Amino acid sequence: MPTMHLPQHVKLVEVGPRDGLQNEANPVPPEVKVELIDRLSAAGLPNVEAAAFVSPRWVPQMADGAEVMARIRRRPGTVYSALVPNMKGMEAALAASVGEVVVFSAASEAFAQANINCSIAESIARFEPVAQAAKAAGVRLRGSISCALGCPYQGEVEPRAVVDVVQRMAALGCDEIDIADTIGVGTPGAVQAVFEAAAGVFPLDRLAGHFHDTYGQALANILAALQSGVSAFHASVAGLGGCPYAKGATGNVATEDVLYMLEGLGLRTGVDLRAVAETGDFISRAIGRPNNSRAGRALLAKWSAQNANPTACAA
Amino acid sequence: MPTMHLPQHVKLVEVGPRDGLQNEANPVPPEVKVELIDRLSAAGLPNVEAAAFVSPRWVPQMADGAEVMARIRRRPGTVYSALVPNMKGMEAALAASVGEVVVFSAASEAFAQANINCSIAESIARFEPVAQAAKAAGVRLRGSISCALGCPYQGEVEPRAVVDVVQRMAALGCDEIDIADTIGVGTPGAVQAVFEAAAGVFPLDRLAGHFHDTYGQALANILAALQSGVSAFHASVAGLGGCPYAKGATGNVATEDVLYMLEGLGLRTGVDLRAVAETGDFISRAIGRPNNSRAGRALLAKWSAQNANPTACAA
Repeated sequence: MPTMHLPQHVKLVEVGPRDGLQNEANPVPPEVKVELIDRLSAAGLPNVEAAAFVSPRWVPQMADGAEVMARIRRRPGTVYSALVPNMKGMEAALAASVGEVVVFSAASEAFAQANINCSIAESIARFEPVAQAAKAAGVRLRGSISCALGCPYQGEVEPRAVVDVVQRMAALGCDEIDIADTIGVGTPGAVQAVFEAAAGVFPLDRLAGHFHDTYGQALANILAALQSGVSAFHASVAGLGGCPYAKGATGNVATEDVLYMLEGLGLRTGVDLRAVAETGDFISRAIGRPNNSRAGRALLAKWSAQNANPTACAA
Repeated sequence: MPTMHLPQHVKLVEVGPRDGLQNEANPVPPEVKVELIDRLSAAGLPNVEAAAFVSPRWVPQMADGAEVMARIRRRPGTVYSALVPNMKGMEAALAASVGEVVVFSAASEAFAQANINCSIAESIARFEPVAQAAKAAGVRLRGSISCALGCPYQGEVEPRAVVDVVQRMAALGCDEIDIADTIGVGTPGAVQAVFEAAAGVFPLDRLAGHFHDTYGQALANILAALQSGVSAFHASVAGLGGCPYAKGATGNVATEDVLYMLEGLGLRTGVDLRAVAETGDFISRAIGRPNNSRAGRALLAKWSAQNANPTACAA
C-alpha cells in the first residue's frame, strides 16, 4: 500500500432496511425487515438505520416502524437509527427505544422548496424541539444533508452551501452529520472538496459519507473521501434502494462492494463480509429483485461453485 | 480538487469490439461490429481494439476480423488494434493493416498452464517472431498481462510475478504493456503496489490499466492507478464482455463510467461522453442485452426525460 494514508478503522452505517426498503414499490412485511436487521447486526454492523417514524399516508413502506423495533434482537454494539421528521415522529422513536434519531435537510434550496416547501434554514429550525428532546433523552442525534454533490432541480451545488448546512446542524447539536450524494452525480475531486470544506467547521471524525452508485462512482468517491480522512460511510446491503428519478438506475452503494474494498485496503470494520453477502442474497430473494451488489453476486457465485466442486476454478 | 495529483491527459483504449464481443455467446454480425467501431472512433477514442486474428475454430466470434477491418472507416488519430496469437495471426493482421498488434501472457503460472499449456516464459518466447515482424512492418506492439491482480486457479499473484512478465515483454520490444485484472478481484492498494513495482522496470507512461468490474472495484482501482501516475486505461462501451467464470457477473469496466469520472476530475481524454453513451445504447440494443454501464444508463435516462419534458427534473 505505497502512497495511501487512510483511517485504519472505518464505521459502516447500514441503511438498507430504511433508506433501501423505503424505495421499494411494495411494502416489505415486518417479519422480513426484522430478519434483515437481525442478520445485519449479527454480521457486526455497528449502526443500522432501521425505521422511519413518518406519516404512513406519505410513506406506507415505513408504517411498521414500532413493530419492527419491538421485534428485533438488539445486539450490544449496534446502534439502531430512525428517521424522524417532527416531534410526533420523535415521540414514536423514543417510545420504540431507538439509539439514534436522524434529522434531515438538503444542500440545495431548489430541492428543499420542491420537497418540503420551505427554505433550508426553516427546515433545520423546525428540528430544534426534536434536537432538544434527543439531548434530554440521551439519544444520539444525526443530521443528514441530501443533494450535497448535485441537485436534480438546480444542478450544481457549491461546497459552501454544504458548509452552511453543516454549521446549522452543528448548532442544532448533531453528534454526526452525513453528507449525501443523493443522485449519485459526484466524482472524487468534488467529494474531497466538499468534505475538506465541511471539516473546516465540524470534526472530521464525526462526518460520514453517503454515496449512490447511479453513475457507478460510489466506490471511487469513498476511496477519495477516505483519503481526505473520512472514516464513516453509509451503505445498503445488496444495493437496496433504487433511484426514484430514473427507472432501473442504481441507488445506494452496496455494503458488500464497500466491505470488499475496505478489506482489500486492510482497513478494519468489524463486519463479516460473508454474513453480509448472504444477507444480501436473503433480502434479494425475499423481495424478488436482482441482487444489486457486484461483489455480492461475484462472491455468492464463487462460493456456490466451490460448494458444487471444491477443486474447481474459484473465480 | 484539493489533494490529488493526477495525469492531466488520459488515453482510453476501447476494447468493447474485441474483448467485449468475444465473450458474447452468439457471434455478432460484421456490419454491427463495423458500425460499433466507426461510432467509437468518431467519438474520439484514440485506440480501439477491433479484431482478433485467432483460430475461428476456437473463437468463432472473431472469425470476421479481416472483413471488419476492411469495412471500417479509418479515422486519423485512432489506432486500431488486433490480438494475434502467432505468426499466422500476425500475417492476417498485417494484411488487414492494423495499427497495433497485441501479444499476451499471464502473471500466473497456473493460469498459463491451464489456458495455453506452457509456462509464462515459453508463452512470451513464442511471440518473438511476431514482435520482429511488428518492428519490421512499423506496427505498434502491445503486451497484455492477464491475471495480474489475482488468478482463478492459484489465487494471489505477487507484484514481482507481474514485474517479471513486464521485463520479458519489454525485452520483446513492446511499445505499451497493459496490466490486467482479468477476474476483477483487485483493490486500490494492491493496484498501486503492482503499478509502482512495474514502473520500476518499464516507463510508467507506457503502462496501461485494464480493470474488470466483477466486484465493483474498477473505478476505485482506476482512481488509485491515476494517483500512481498511470495515464492509459482500457474500457468497454456499455460494459460489453461478461466474466466467463461467473454467469451474470460483470466484466470490463464501462467506458461511460470511466469517462464520467475522468470528466468530473477535469482530466482530458478527447472523447465525447455523449457519443459513447449513445453508442452503448446502440450496441446493447443490437445484441439484445442490458446496458451494463451505470453512467450510461443514468445519462440516457436523463436525456430521455429532458427530451420528453425539457423543464422536468434532470436527475
